[in-house]
Amino acid sequence: MPSYTPTTRTRHRRIPARGSYDRTLVHSILDEAIVCHIGFEHEGQPFVLPTTFARVGETLYVHGAAASRMLGVLRKGVPVCVTVTLVDGLVFSRSWFHQSMNYRSVVVLGEAREVTNRAEKLSALRSFVERVSPGMSERARPPTAKELAATRVLAMPLEEVSAKTRDGGPKEEPEDEDAQVYSGHVPIELAAREPVAEPGCVVAAPPLPRQFRRVRDRTM
Amino acid sequence: MPSYTPTTRTRHRRIPARGSYDRTLVHSILDEAIVCHIGFEHEGQPFVLPTTFARVGETLYVHGAAASRMLGVLRKGVPVCVTVTLVDGLVFSRSWFHQSMNYRSVVVLGEAREVTNRAEKLSALRSFVERVSPGMSERARPPTAKELAATRVLAMPLEEVSAKTRDGGPKEEPEDEDAQVYSGHVPIELAAREPVAEPGCVVAAPPLPRQFRRVRDRTM
Repeated sequence: MPSYTPTTRTRHRRIPARGSYDRTLVHSILDEAIVCHIGFEHEGQPFVLPTTFARVGETLYVHGAAASRMLGVLRKGVPVCVTVTLVDGLVFSRSWFHQSMNYRSVVVLGEAREVTNRAEKLSALRSFVERVSPGMSERARPPTAKELAATRVLAMPLEEVSAKTRDGGPKEEPEDEDAQVYSGHVPIELAAREPVAEPGCVVAAPPLPRQFRRVRDRTM
Repeated sequence: MPSYTPTTRTRHRRIPARGSYDRTLVHSILDEAIVCHIGFEHEGQPFVLPTTFARVGETLYVHGAAASRMLGVLRKGVPVCVTVTLVDGLVFSRSWFHQSMNYRSVVVLGEAREVTNRAEKLSALRSFVERVSPGMSERARPPTAKELAATRVLAMPLEEVSAKTRDGGPKEEPEDEDAQVYSGHVPIELAAREPVAEPGCVVAAPPLPRQFRRVRDRTM
């Protein structure tokens, strides 16, 4: 797949080696994350609000209550920034200066459009259910007409997109080589704990996508 | 401690029960999180960038390279939004409509100021080291004059602040009570894996704060 095209707004200036426009990398970060942070301006003040999202091809969907203030602003087609961040590790250096973090992040710039086509809206809502539990949309009840009307879905094209990543250990200065201080990194990941069923529910919890699986169920 | 005072910009309109201005809750969310998302506008486009931060009393510090574009914009005292989100769980409902997530988030509105006082700057940088590894700032080398000059620290007051949280299981409609579909939630948390030391490092990895400890080391 061809990479995204850098723009003056998405070009990585300071440490270009950490930047990427690789489409496969961007998709993998978006698909692993659970929340995005949406930035927009309202009456002269920037707001950043967390919300769930789903990627379908080159479209990123967000949804919420039709009464949501954020979605009400976004549907007007104002400039938006959607940022997705995965924290991968703590990086410990022998110096304060080189302490760091490992991460993978994606920044999407553009404008959102409201999804009014019923088929696309239902398809987008299905993807929200499927991404946290594959197969669940077939078992759980789809929205009624009333629920559908109470839900707003917005779509944002993946066009002006960039990724940034850091991994591995710390940088160290030669002068610190002999210091008896830990130098290394600690990987961090999301882990699920035991499911908590509602009273009276005797159905087993659904399988989770790989990134949410319990740490001890994975090959470490 | 007295709560933060709601403003027209931080008041929770749609589901007030999920909103809070409780200072202790806000502090606990900020102290548990590793990254924040900073929103600001630049040339008519909102940007949201992830970065580490540290809370000291009622001040939130962020830092980065003196050459950072974001910090260069923020130091001018433009309106800023800092958002911190902890993902606590996936919520599965018998209907698509009531699928949800558990989370704790904090939104801070205001303006940042650059920290130019050397003692405050060093103290802030120490807090970045200490928050991921208590005691580490005593062992690792503090910044040289050159490193200090290459680092910019910004401070943001915790004044216009709100929190939002959701926990527990899904809402279900009476009509879905008998459906043989899972109803419950799966707690999610950050978990650290085995530390990876740099070649030649024989010093043991430092203890991590509670929220980063390995799942199997905790009482579950």
